[in-house]
Amino acid sequence: MVGSDVPAKQNELRVGFAQTCPEFGDVPGNLERGRALLDSAPAFDVLVLPELFATGYVFRDRAELQSLAEDATGPTLQFLRENARERSAWLAGGFAERDGARVFNSAALVGPEGQVHIYRKIHRFDRETEVFDPGDGPFQCHELAIREVRVRVGMLICFDWFFPESARCLALAGADVLLHPSNLVMSHCQRAMVTRCLENGVFAVTANRVGSDDRGDVAATFTGASQITGPGGAILESAPATGECVRVTTIDVEDARKKRISPRNDRLADRRPEHYGLLTKENADPGAAPRGM
Amino acid sequence: MVGSDVPAKQNELRVGFAQTCPEFGDVPGNLERGRALLDSAPAFDVLVLPELFATGYVFRDRAELQSLAEDATGPTLQFLRENARERSAWLAGGFAERDGARVFNSAALVGPEGQVHIYRKIHRFDRETEVFDPGDGPFQCHELAIREVRVRVGMLICFDWFFPESARCLALAGADVLLHPSNLVMSHCQRAMVTRCLENGVFAVTANRVGSDDRGDVAATFTGASQITGPGGAILESAPATGECVRVTTIDVEDARKKRISPRNDRLADRRPEHYGLLTKENADPGAAPRGM
Repeated sequence: MVGSDVPAKQNELRVGFAQTCPEFGDVPGNLERGRALLDSAPAFDVLVLPELFATGYVFRDRAELQSLAEDATGPTLQFLRENARERSAWLAGGFAERDGARVFNSAALVGPEGQVHIYRKIHRFDRETEVFDPGDGPFQCHELAIREVRVRVGMLICFDWFFPESARCLALAGADVLLHPSNLVMSHCQRAMVTRCLENGVFAVTANRVGSDDRGDVAATFTGASQITGPGGAILESAPATGECVRVTTIDVEDARKKRISPRNDRLADRRPEHYGLLTKENADPGAAPRGM
Repeated sequence: MVGSDVPAKQNELRVGFAQTCPEFGDVPGNLERGRALLDSAPAFDVLVLPELFATGYVFRDRAELQSLAEDATGPTLQFLRENARERSAWLAGGFAERDGARVFNSAALVGPEGQVHIYRKIHRFDRETEVFDPGDGPFQCHELAIREVRVRVGMLICFDWFFPESARCLALAGADVLLHPSNLVMSHCQRAMVTRCLENGVFAVTANRVGSDDRGDVAATFTGASQITGPGGAILESAPATGECVRVTTIDVEDARKKRISPRNDRLADRRPEHYGLLTKENADPGAAPRGM
């Protein structure tokens, strides 16, 4: 990350995504194609790969998931460590994480000097609830030092987007940029990320996959359209709905520290948590009678 | 609300908005035009008028606001009570509420039998912070009995939309329909309401005003485009950006009780409040160092 293509301004960083098309279960092949895709990328500082990009997504059952799950010594983390080191950059991507008898739908954030941060998906989607263990939290914010830039990043994984609490907790923890490895099957997320970024004043990098996992009895098709969204809600990069690709854009991290939304309003400081008590209470029974706060 | 235009299905209600163009300070004229607009409306069960629809929005200072503020015996509440009774329907609309020395940016929900519920805006926008007192909460959900239908409604006012906590608290309190009197000056809200309704599985009726308050030193232009949004994120009604109008659509309240978003996911029950602790802590200093939860 040296040379003429390094951003000139003090707080600028090059962030991007790789939109991949994994073949289910072919970990070596998926990692090989991932490496080729990274080779084709413009220079970057932080790049996000999709959720479960090395294994594929549709596990027939927990036994199959366990057979493909790995720990920090496994091939996916090794791939991320190698590529982060070789490219002097940070990489984030999803993997099936084995921890004793438990298996999490996790994402690793890996740095050029071997740093590793792991986030375990808190909100599992659909059949994930039958094969993965629920993430044990917390939502985490990490400060990365990249050249002279200090950027605070937080991870969420795919369906975490649906719950406004996820991005909000990361913003309150200080995140400037949300790294969002995904395997999206619905069409709502990309538009919703505009609202998530606007309401929190953060950047988000949503790395989605394409293609299908057709496993006979169960199948899923993924919607691509990976996206980088800015703190004012602008869509800075948007990939096609099909096809592998890699995109990088330059962001000014300082834009995520300007939390003003009017001359007299601050996105975070104007929250009124004394009125938000229901948010941290045990979940209401959706069929229960209405009640005040 | 009897006769052939009453919805046939058991859980159906007719909800709508009036998009008005107040003239600043002309309370009698604004109420008269409001009555004419309601006279032109198709039959409805619940109808929402904009924020501060009787007074206008741009108060030069607190003294001017106090001169136009009113209590429950004032002309705006009287207008809402009369029209609710005459039309055998529920009306919601905004007014400047005087309570002793305090003045709130409030909304009243008024029923055909004289029922009155008042909500005081919790998140004040821009110059409102200099003239209005902050709403003292809570977010409220009210169950209304309309024919055989029981519907739970919650109110939020304009800029409350920006904070995902507002709609979330109302949904957790049991709301099926969000009544949203507004005086919007930005363009983001209508798209964001798609996300708010989708993430909470609720309907929302956003009643915005049009026209301008040009008060010399201070002025504002309002963006119309009032909108009714469904629990799947569909836009059910959308008004033009200019001009007064009234729109009514039939909704099935039961659609707001179907909180499933996948075969194995429930919008509210799948929240994981044990990981949301930051949401109810005192606000972080936006300039503070990053921290985990």
